Amino acid sequence: MAGALLERGLRVIDLSADFRLRSPDVYREYYGQEHPAPDLLEEAVYGMPELHRDAIRGAALVAAPGCYPTSIILPLHPLLRAGYLDPASIVAVSMSGVSGAGRKSDSTLLFCECAGSMRAYGLPRHRHLSEIEQELSLAAGRSVAISFAPHLVPVPRGIATTIHARLAPGVSLRVVAAALCDAYAREPFVRLLKEGVFPDTKHVVRTNYIDIGHAYDGRTGRVILTSAVDNLTKGAAGQALQSFNLMHGLPETTGLLECG
Amino acid sequence: MAGALLERGLRVIDLSADFRLRSPDVYREYYGQEHPAPDLLEEAVYGMPELHRDAIRGAALVAAPGCYPTSIILPLHPLLRAGYLDPASIVAVSMSGVSGAGRKSDSTLLFCECAGSMRAYGLPRHRHLSEIEQELSLAAGRSVAISFAPHLVPVPRGIATTIHARLAPGVSLRVVAAALCDAYAREPFVRLLKEGVFPDTKHVVRTNYIDIGHAYDGRTGRVILTSAVDNLTKGAAGQALQSFNLMHGLPETTGLLECG
Amino acid sequence: MAGALLERGLRVIDLSADFRLRSPDVYREYYGQEHPAPDLLEEAVYGMPELHRDAIRGAALVAAPGCYPTSIILPLHPLLRAGYLDPASIVAVSMSGVSGAGRKSDSTLLFCECAGSMRAYGLPRHRHLSEIEQELSLAAGRSVAISFAPHLVPVPRGIATTIHARLAPGVSLRVVAAALCDAYAREPFVRLLKEGVFPDTKHVVRTNYIDIGHAYDGRTGRVILTSAVDNLTKGAAGQALQSFNLMHGLPETTGLLECG
Amino acid sequence: MAGALLERGLRVIDLSADFRLRSPDVYREYYGQEHPAPDLLEEAVYGMPELHRDAIRGAALVAAPGCYPTSIILPLHPLLRAGYLDPASIVAVSMSGVSGAGRKSDSTLLFCECAGSMRAYGLPRHRHLSEIEQELSLAAGRSVAISFAPHLVPVPRGIATTIHARLAPGVSLRVVAAALCDAYAREPFVRLLKEGVFPDTKHVVRTNYIDIGHAYDGRTGRVILTSAVDNLTKGAAGQALQSFNLMHGLPETTGLLECG
Repeated sequence: MAGALLERGLRVIDLSADFRLRSPDVYREYYGQEHPAPDLLEEAVYGMPELHRDAIRGAALVAAPGCYPTSIILPLHPLLRAGYLDPASIVAVSMSGVSGAGRKSDSTLLFCECAGSMRAYGLPRHRHLSEIEQELSLAAGRSVAISFAPHLVPVPRGIATTIHARLAPGVSLRVVAAALCDAYAREPFVRLLKEGVFPDTKHVVRTNYIDIGHAYDGRTGRVILTSAVDNLTKGAAGQALQSFNLMHGLPETTGLLECG
Repeated sequence: MAGALLERGLRVIDLSADFRLRSPDVYREYYGQEHPAPDLLEEAVYGMPELHRDAIRGAALVAAPGCYPTSIILPLHPLLRAGYLDPASIVAVSMSGVSGAGRKSDSTLLFCECAGSMRAYGLPRHRHLSEIEQELSLAAGRSVAISFAPHLVPVPRGIATTIHARLAPGVSLRVVAAALCDAYAREPFVRLLKEGVFPDTKHVVRTNYIDIGHAYDGRTGRVILTSAVDNLTKGAAGQALQSFNLMHGLPETTGLLECG
Repeated sequence: MAGALLERGLRVIDLSADFRLRSPDVYREYYGQEHPAPDLLEEAVYGMPELHRDAIRGAALVAAPGCYPTSIILPLHPLLRAGYLDPASIVAVSMSGVSGAGRKSDSTLLFCECAGSMRAYGLPRHRHLSEIEQELSLAAGRSVAISFAPHLVPVPRGIATTIHARLAPGVSLRVVAAALCDAYAREPFVRLLKEGVFPDTKHVVRTNYIDIGHAYDGRTGRVILTSAVDNLTKGAAGQALQSFNLMHGLPETTGLLECG
Repeated sequence: MAGALLERGLRVIDLSADFRLRSPDVYREYYGQEHPAPDLLEEAVYGMPELHRDAIRGAALVAAPGCYPTSIILPLHPLLRAGYLDPASIVAVSMSGVSGAGRKSDSTLLFCECAGSMRAYGLPRHRHLSEIEQELSLAAGRSVAISFAPHLVPVPRGIATTIHARLAPGVSLRVVAAALCDAYAREPFVRLLKEGVFPDTKHVVRTNYIDIGHAYDGRTGRVILTSAVDNLTKGAAGQALQSFNLMHGLPETTGLLECG
């Protein structure tokens, strides 16, 4: 449908996964079918304002990112770009509220099936890996493959993500914190927490914020990055609205600061 | 108190953390105080029947393991013993129900504070790391340090754990599965799931079972081990009862199969 | 199906509503269709052991009661039988966990639809009224019509019911308490609470108990009866097993005391 | 404290129960102590804009109503004022989310104590009865005593209330619906539902709305009124802000329409 809308001169923000990947081959690999409009992939912009703000401003076709990818890409991006992490060492574990699975009349999503249930799923290759690795590879300037384990948890909304990665030789937590600060201190929807303070989904649900925490484990040489987003807001419609604001020259926070 | 009971000829199963560690130095490091009865540490047995069954049978003092350690040690133990994993590569992420925090009148444990909240805590050095690494080091025959990130999730009971680790060179998922099977196929409270099937806490809550799943991610060379236990049963009182049965020559499952 | 099974000499306990009503007319009125086997209605016994124990023992066809009716009939029955209540004054309000709605892949039963939702439904004539009024009328020796308002609440299991009724002239709370005690003190699955102590579903879930509380409001002349049951146990399968035990000469509590 | 503030010429909106009752005797009876400032009771206005809008505009001291009273008084008020109900027949049953109990570090409010728990409490004379009956008596022009049974349910926010009352002779549901419509059709925060549609707390949580439904049970001659509010918004701070807007000549909905 996006093609027809674009031909009529409309600008499109697509909430589906269809235009998130630059490569039709990766699309086929992760989504199990040929891409229906491969010619549009080149002009599509991955709608994460913190990474692609300028491109979004002028884009005709924006692909709103997935919920898990938002919670994983944002903490890692400035650190990979700076070469501060061993890209082969990244392990991301996420837990998501049930709305992340959509509103399907599926027996696995019934109240009585979900209440009291915590479980991993989609291992080892959840579809969101494709867009996560695309963006992380762009940041690192080389191909990055990570481990990613999503879990379903009985809350309606929210994603909590915890990422472990080894620091590159000679990199300290201080420079990690500085890189996060440089990247995000002026971002309206990224809140950096002090070392040793960890995000809680209850503080981001119904908002467009991503909260990011960090800590360092000297015993294993790993930095620990934690994040929390609302899967339906910063992880979906809120981030799309953020792109809409950019595309139309509105203040980027328009319509996104009222609730919480 | 354990010392006084032992002097009177009683046998003790201690649900606290006091006798889980063999080293008074590690106790001091993780618990912030001198061990009150270091002379008893040598005779204490770590009460995990799958690892120390014979020692438990004859023990005067058994230390019931912690809840997170049960969910982490059991999946890893046979693989470290066999040398199938890179010990430096282990990352364990757990999510626990709120009863794991005890029944304290603490405002952070109130219903309205926990409902809708998912958050990491205790990073990077939760106390349970000490007993986890003690038992994993014994299995590996060398010192093992892992990354461990616990999370609090709004369910009353249950722990779900997901572990990533690199396979040692030449090791395939097939031999991993075989090692798990060799170790646990005859264990009454360990249920091994087929490759690609992942445990769900709702299937173990109110039981003494640990469910263990496994998968392999060829892209990163990591095996993924998943487990689920009830933090109050297999992760605490149920496992203690299992030791009690062994100590008294009762069938090991006595009193532990009725519910679920 | 019941008819065919009975013809083959089998005894049947039916968990559906089909044989709970003695009158095919009432069945048609509440269930919107002709009764498929009206000739069996006369021999069917309403499977509430506290009311029909002897008839259940010899019955070929037992209809297991509904969940709401169990929580409403048991508190009221001895008081109506004794003439202690004004039958026209009875108002019963219940709140039920979501499993009471069955395991249908219905969007209204999805986790995200139920979490945070409390709502009345089925007003003013829920189907269970038919069997409630049948049994209460038998107790009172006259036709009884009550008000009944069920609610859906986001817990998996349990029913809490609160009933208001005016005392008949000259009746005190003391004789009400005595009547409950006379009726139920020796019942294995009825637990009477002291005046001013009110039942909590968490104390009956996964058990076959019904907890019953009572209080009196002198300002309005109403007695308040409160009850709690597990809709899937005392309100369904547990009560059916209780009938099974009676039908087969087993101790009535067989298989019903293990959990909780 | 209110007295001191008033003396300094400030206007006060009190969220506590201290100025909700006109009678110091009723205060003593329900709150167990002498009223600390009985001279202020006469000038205090009960802060329910739908009932006392003009008085609130000019008031120096406004008492914000309780959460349960809001859900009970609003549905009943126009019907009692019109003489459409038998005042002696009113039975109100409410279920409240846990935030209604306040943020006390009380073991009964812990997550693990509340999850899975549904229970009545405060029977037969919850403190809120005093303000409910004060306002209903004013509406009816005579002394009204009702039955009221509050329940605690494991959700963070929201109150669902179901009220049964007999219609006065000759009154039909049609005139009941018309009276509700006359009273509330122009109210910005009262939403009347069609006959047979019942409110759900999930549609009012985080808003200042009260949703009101109605139905009639011809078998018992009772009208059934159902309502839903957010105990923290329309039931507390939101309604206080509504009064604030009136007191300061602001549009009444200022600050109250943004979320939901």
